Parts: sequence; C-alpha cells; structure tokens
Amino acid sequence: MDSATLHKDIDSFFDSAPPLKDSAKITDKLNQFIQFDSPSSEGKARVVCVTSGGTTVPLEQRCVRYIDNFSSGNRGAASTEYFIRAGYKVIFLYRRGTCQPYCRSLPEDPLLECFELADASDFRVRQSHSEAVKGAIGNHHAAVAGGLLLKLPFTTIFEYLQMLRIIASSMRSLECRAMFYLAAAVSDFYVPWKSMAEHKIQSASGPLDMRLMQVPKMLSVLRTEWSPMAFCISFKLETDSKILLEKANMALKKYKMHSVVANELLTRKEEVTVVTENGNISVCRDKTRPGSDVEDPLIELLVNRHSTYIKDAST
Amino acid sequence: MDSATLHKDIDSFFDSAPPLKDSAKITDKLNQFIQFDSPSSEGKARVVCVTSGGTTVPLEQRCVRYIDNFSSGNRGAASTEYFIRAGYKVIFLYRRGTCQPYCRSLPEDPLLECFELADASDFRVRQSHSEAVKGAIGNHHAAVAGGLLLKLPFTTIFEYLQMLRIIASSMRSLECRAMFYLAAAVSDFYVPWKSMAEHKIQSASGPLDMRLMQVPKMLSVLRTEWSPMAFCISFKLETDSKILLEKANMALKKYKMHSVVANELLTRKEEVTVVTENGNISVCRDKTRPGSDVEDPLIELLVNRHSTYIKDAST
Repeated sequence: MDSATLHKDIDSFFDSAPPLKDSAKITDKLNQFIQFDSPSSEGKARVVCVTSGGTTVPLEQRCVRYIDNFSSGNRGAASTEYFIRAGYKVIFLYRRGTCQPYCRSLPEDPLLECFELADASDFRVRQSHSEAVKGAIGNHHAAVAGGLLLKLPFTTIFEYLQMLRIIASSMRSLECRAMFYLAAAVSDFYVPWKSMAEHKIQSASGPLDMRLMQVPKMLSVLRTEWSPMAFCISFKLETDSKILLEKANMALKKYKMHSVVANELLTRKEEVTVVTENGNISVCRDKTRPGSDVEDPLIELLVNRHSTYIKDAST
Repeated sequence: MDSATLHKDIDSFFDSAPPLKDSAKITDKLNQFIQFDSPSSEGKARVVCVTSGGTTVPLEQRCVRYIDNFSSGNRGAASTEYFIRAGYKVIFLYRRGTCQPYCRSLPEDPLLECFELADASDFRVRQSHSEAVKGAIGNHHAAVAGGLLLKLPFTTIFEYLQMLRIIASSMRSLECRAMFYLAAAVSDFYVPWKSMAEHKIQSASGPLDMRLMQVPKMLSVLRTEWSPMAFCISFKLETDSKILLEKANMALKKYKMHSVVANELLTRKEEVTVVTENGNISVCRDKTRPGSDVEDPLIELLVNRHSTYIKDAST
C-alpha cells in the first residue's frame, strides 16, 4: 500500500471515530506526568508507553454487541512492573478490567476472595492472601505516588488509537528516551462508525452477514510521524507456529520496528522470540526459579537494547 | 419454525459445542445447593436461577477474537440481592468479571481504590469506602454461608446454554417453586464450533466477510421440556423504543413466558415494563429515595406474581 492511500485510510478512520471524551484532560495528565522528573534522573528519565489488553470493535452505535480481541493483560502488567524496577516511568494504556501491575497474583475477585469476616462488624484479609494484598496495594501506591506510573484505560479500538496518538505526540519531545511497548491485542477489522447500525441488529430471520473493514496500520505513522525518534517494540501473536516468525519478520520491516516480540498462544508464558534486524533472540522463563516469568528477562533485554539505541543516537 | 426443525437446530447447536468442563462437579454443587433446606423453609424453599451479564461467541477455536454482548451485570446482581431478601435461594449464573451481588457500590478496581497504606508494612480501608466494603464482604459471605447464594460463572454462549440446561434439569423437581429470571444478554448469532477457523483469522488483505448462524431459541424448550413447571421471566432489551413492547409481546407468546421484562437501553435503570398475558405493568425506581433502584419494586412484583402462580398450581 502506498503512503497516500495509507494516509487516506487513517484520516477516514479517525474522521469516522466517535470523538474521544476528556481528550484535553488526558493531554494535561500526560504532560504533567512526563514533565515531572525526580531529582535523581537529572532530566534524563526514560518513559515507556506500555499498551495492554485487547481492543473492542462496536457493531452498533448504541453499543450492545461488539467484537473483542482476547487478552488478559498479564504481559502488559508484568512488563510494567519490570520497567518501573529498571527506572522507567510507565504510561500504562490498558483495557478496562484487565490485569493491573502488582496485582497478578491476586484471585479474580480480590475483595470477595481475599477478605473474610472478623466478627459481625468487621473484616480482615485472609492469612493466605495477606502478602499478595499487601504487595499489590503497597507497590501500586508507591509507583503512582512516585510519579512512575500513569494509568489510562480504553475500551474500543477508536479510543485506543486516539489515545495512542495523543500519547505519542506528548512523548515526541523525549526523542530517543521514549519507548513504545505495544503489547495490546489490537483489532484488525472494524466497522466504520458512520456505516454502523444505529440500533440493535435484529435477529428476525436467517443468518447474519457482516463485512468488516481493515483497521489501517498505524504502526508506520507512529514510527515515522507521531514519535519518530522513539524506540518501538511491537508484538506478533499467532496460534500457528509455522507462520509466526515469518509474520514477525514482515512486521519488523514493514513498520520499521526496532524489535518485534513473536509469541505463540500456547507457549507465550514460557518463551518468546525477539525478532530484530540482526537476527532472532529466544527469551525463556527461568524455569529453575518458581514463580518466575518470561517478562523478567524480556524487559532486561529490551532495556539494554534501548540503552544502546540512546547511546548510538547521541554519538 | 416448527418443533421438529427447532429440535434439530438445538441438537446441532449442542453437538457442535465444545464439551463443558466440570459438568459433573457443577451438577453435584447444584443438587447439594437445591437440597440444602433451612429448617424455617419447611421444605418449601423457592429457588430462582438469575442469569446475568453477556455471553460471548468465539470466532476462532483457539479463541483470540470473539463477539461479545455487552452487559455490566448490574441488573442481575441487584435482583439477586432482592430475591435473597425475599427469602429465595439464588443460583447466580453470571458472566466472569461482571457485577457481583452486594458489590454494586464499589469502584471498578476495589482493591486498589478502596484501600490505602497505613504505614510501610500495613494497609487499611479508606474511610470513604469503609461502609461499602464492609457491606459487600459481610452480606456476600452471609448469603453464601447461609446456603442462599450459589455462583456459577460462564464466558461463551456454549457454556451458558449447557449450564442453563443442567440447572433447569436440577430445578425440575422443585416444580412451581422454581423460577427463571433470565436477565443475561444472550448472543443471537454464533459460529458453529466445527466450522470455525482453527487458527487466528489472517488480516492479509481486504475486508473480512463473516456469516453467523442464529442461535436456536432455547426459551421454548426450557419452558416445555427442561423445567416445564417453573415460573419463567425473560428480558427484552432494545435501543429503539418504537419496537420494544411489540417485540416483548411476541416473545411472551412465542416462548410461553409468564412475564417479559421490556427495557430500553437508555432508560433501563429508571423504568421497565413487565409484559404479561393480562396487560403491561410499568415499574419505576422510587425517585424520592436516593440510591433506590428499579430492581427493588420489580422483584417485589415478580415475587408476588410467583406466589399467586404457586397458589394457583396447588389448587
């Protein structure tokens, strides 16, 4: 696809999107977060935008039905923790209701499962969940209060891409200290808002035929226009291992990513492959350490590569 | 549609569905819950199955994408509280992650929003959320411990309908003391499991065309075969008020429901219409009472109608 056609598709996507609520407020929050610098960072703080969870595609304007891309958000939440540990400030752009940083070891419904009645008028945390609850609240509050974590929720593909564009513009001034870690599961197809049924689709008779348009690939414009100096990592998830690396390689070249993290649905928690211009690097969970995860070595690798990238850019 | 065709469609839906995990365990739990009778009920306990939240339709066997029906589950959760208050035992068949009984006034992420650090090693509930948290944990534990609330989660349309069938069979012996309150937002369309793409649908080129089949209407067989004596309430949600009552009336006759609760997307928290054979009853939230909801008078009305139904059946 040539650049003119891509730009036309992108314009028509954004033109057809319902306007983002609170976009001025989001921009303010972002600028405040990015400008706030701890004394120790000497104005050289690195900022990463971690996207997490799946986007939805509404099928009706008054949204009852939508197509959803499944993602627990576990990878984004885990990676956020490791980026913060490495000294990064994290803009966590996440799907509402998905996994939150420092909360990965909590049960699905923490309030009802982690607490019990102490007596008729009081409750307490269950002994078995005490450490997990304390860690979640403590680490989370410390990260937010310390200016290291800004959380921004989305639901639809329209919200996600509009917010990503605002974030990229805000991060542009950070130049090579900015990083994008695009772990969200983004819809490939959408129904343009204006051609969408206003009311609930009726199920009166027969099968339902739907035609979905391709979401224009925003990765190219993120790289070349929105935040051209940022270090960019995208993800490729496939269920079929045979086509995975080939598709990751295609994405690397097509969108000019600095790395593409290739992962297969069934083994994604054990192993990923970091695909780069200079070859592939396999990253595995440290199986000798109970409770370890693949995001730990993955973020270490990417932080090192980002350091090299910053060094190369300044020489 | 004639009965033979419907049965063929239903058989083909269940035949094509992936087998339900833990179905024996679910049946055991159900039987134990239904048979456990508090001394005060003298073997006459009423049991209601409240369904809540939306079902999903997988578009791929190794599920990455699916169609979702939006529902917060607020109505089902609220109604469950009022049924328990009225002395019912509630089987709460709910979509994972949706609103839970007694938790409606909690913020989206209770653990991170309701608690704060007390000092470096301990945390406490925020004063502003203290009552809500205490109420949620206290009431919820009391209902579960007292044998008044059994919670069963689902995600897909396949799980939902298989579980509903098991529940209906288990409740059959309760005869007219059984009630179904079908507030879940059930998908109208699905992709038969066997014709589904095994791997992730590729987005290589052009628009995506999809053909979805109608989910066979199980309400008729629930009424006539699965649990023929039960008192049955279904819901009709529309975004277009002009067709709402007409469609609710059609559902009442077609599926032989005892009542259909008609609600419009925009006003559903203020007002609903209970459509019955003998006419329509409008039910409104008590606007003079802050924090009141429409489920309070709605459940009162339905419990009274259920009482009449039981009385009529025994004479």
